[in-house]
Amino acid sequence: MNPAFASAAEWIGVAVFALSGAMVAARKGMDPFGFALLATVTGVGGGSVRDVLLGRPAFWVADPTDPIVCVLVGMFVYFVGGRWGLSRLQSRLLLVWADAMGLAIFAVVGTSTALGAGAHPITAVVLGTFTATFGGIIRDILAGDVPMVLHREVYVTAAFVGAAAYATAIYAGIPALGAGAAGVMAAFSLRSLAILRNWSLPPYVETAR
Amino acid sequence: MNPAFASAAEWIGVAVFALSGAMVAARKGMDPFGFALLATVTGVGGGSVRDVLLGRPAFWVADPTDPIVCVLVGMFVYFVGGRWGLSRLQSRLLLVWADAMGLAIFAVVGTSTALGAGAHPITAVVLGTFTATFGGIIRDILAGDVPMVLHREVYVTAAFVGAAAYATAIYAGIPALGAGAAGVMAAFSLRSLAILRNWSLPPYVETAR
Amino acid sequence: MNPAFASAAEWIGVAVFALSGAMVAARKGMDPFGFALLATVTGVGGGSVRDVLLGRPAFWVADPTDPIVCVLVGMFVYFVGGRWGLSRLQSRLLLVWADAMGLAIFAVVGTSTALGAGAHPITAVVLGTFTATFGGIIRDILAGDVPMVLHREVYVTAAFVGAAAYATAIYAGIPALGAGAAGVMAAFSLRSLAILRNWSLPPYVETAR
Repeated sequence: MNPAFASAAEWIGVAVFALSGAMVAARKGMDPFGFALLATVTGVGGGSVRDVLLGRPAFWVADPTDPIVCVLVGMFVYFVGGRWGLSRLQSRLLLVWADAMGLAIFAVVGTSTALGAGAHPITAVVLGTFTATFGGIIRDILAGDVPMVLHREVYVTAAFVGAAAYATAIYAGIPALGAGAAGVMAAFSLRSLAILRNWSLPPYVETAR
Repeated sequence: MNPAFASAAEWIGVAVFALSGAMVAARKGMDPFGFALLATVTGVGGGSVRDVLLGRPAFWVADPTDPIVCVLVGMFVYFVGGRWGLSRLQSRLLLVWADAMGLAIFAVVGTSTALGAGAHPITAVVLGTFTATFGGIIRDILAGDVPMVLHREVYVTAAFVGAAAYATAIYAGIPALGAGAAGVMAAFSLRSLAILRNWSLPPYVETAR
Repeated sequence: MNPAFASAAEWIGVAVFALSGAMVAARKGMDPFGFALLATVTGVGGGSVRDVLLGRPAFWVADPTDPIVCVLVGMFVYFVGGRWGLSRLQSRLLLVWADAMGLAIFAVVGTSTALGAGAHPITAVVLGTFTATFGGIIRDILAGDVPMVLHREVYVTAAFVGAAAYATAIYAGIPALGAGAAGVMAAFSLRSLAILRNWSLPPYVETAR
């Protein structure tokens, strides 16, 4: 991917995941630094897991822009969010949709970064799926919530489809910008439909007794 | 250890841990990609924690065989498992025994890998214990279960004994294959007896009030 | 910081965090190896997260002193603690205060280590905050407790203030020993007041309905 475009996409992904972290902090009635911590670990968590699995420093260690963005998002929601007068349902929707956008963007950014680091394409798809899902997993576990990844609506599936679509498009010779857009669209549409229509894949049904 | 033997042992460990992850996904009624994710993080989680603590890329980044095995195990259990007609008790037993086999194998493989990376023998035993236990810890936390490591039956103990038996045997000059077999047998026997006889070490009893 | 002083501070931090881990193991009625594991992951967890995010091996891999200290602390509490006849309240106080000391020391040690590794000062403060808080987060999650970081009393705030005070003092040209003492004092005083007076920052209040 074009580095400038990749950076812009990563910033948007970090910001919307940070927003989802701040919305969870709001639900838990945390204080300003709790907002900042939850926004930061959610925003940079998935990419950090990807980087340490690749055996290199987390992407934000050399350049603190992303954690600063996360702290600012957290503080903004704390100080300004109270005046928005959001209902509990509206807060929940903001959380779910910010998470969906982050999921779609990070599936592609994570896969792209792993391919750029020379990973095998299948490994890159696995790492893209981890990048997309682990920020939210860390957020939900820290907050003592049931991880969103466990919900039955298409979630891991959307991340995987976005990552696989991007990797496939790259190997088909499609320019990175187009491949990236295709991956983000695929993941986001799938997740959106799942949220809007309460879609889910058939769960495993255990034999009774 | 002989590399071929070590690889074979690691594959078996990865596969049985992936099976335990899939059984937890079954209990939670997850969808196919939920099975794949839980099988993968359980199968490669312990070894990944070991590798990042050693400051190197996770073992499966250069060669995606292990995540592929995990995804296949997860998909197999999802699509075929429903026809086995396992009762809830049988599913639980499959989970506990697959976990016990993974624990025994990874205690030795983890210690062996750490020694091979030049770690101090005591560090290697600690890393072997982490390799054996962290896959299951991540599985249980992701699934919202009480980590098996907290149960009172000999669990961490079995991993530690297997790791320490292997390291001691290596330092006593016993060939790696024999040392590995001894470590796996020690850990598995101890954990088996604990499961079968409901064995536990005396817990700490807090003074009342 | 003077390396000898930094090492001494790190040992104390590791030991008091290990003590807090052992107190949680006591609350859960774990067996001796459960004590050892919980003491170890709590004692070395925060620094390990810092090191892997910096892209290097965990600080205790080359030198197993710290895990040994943790295991000894865990075993000591298991075998001797029962005779202390601590009430449930006294155990809880020991846990909270050991955690507060570890938090204050690790905020400074973590920031100092990150600066020494060449990290940007803001990144170093973020990593110092992570070093101070993640040992306790891992401890609480493994034990199935609500993470202390979620409590409303000033907690992340104390870690952040200690880390930021240390980094600011260093950049103001204050010698490392003085800067370190200032950072530890700032974090510990703030956390102490929060514990003693039930202090908290105003939480975010969600609009009803």
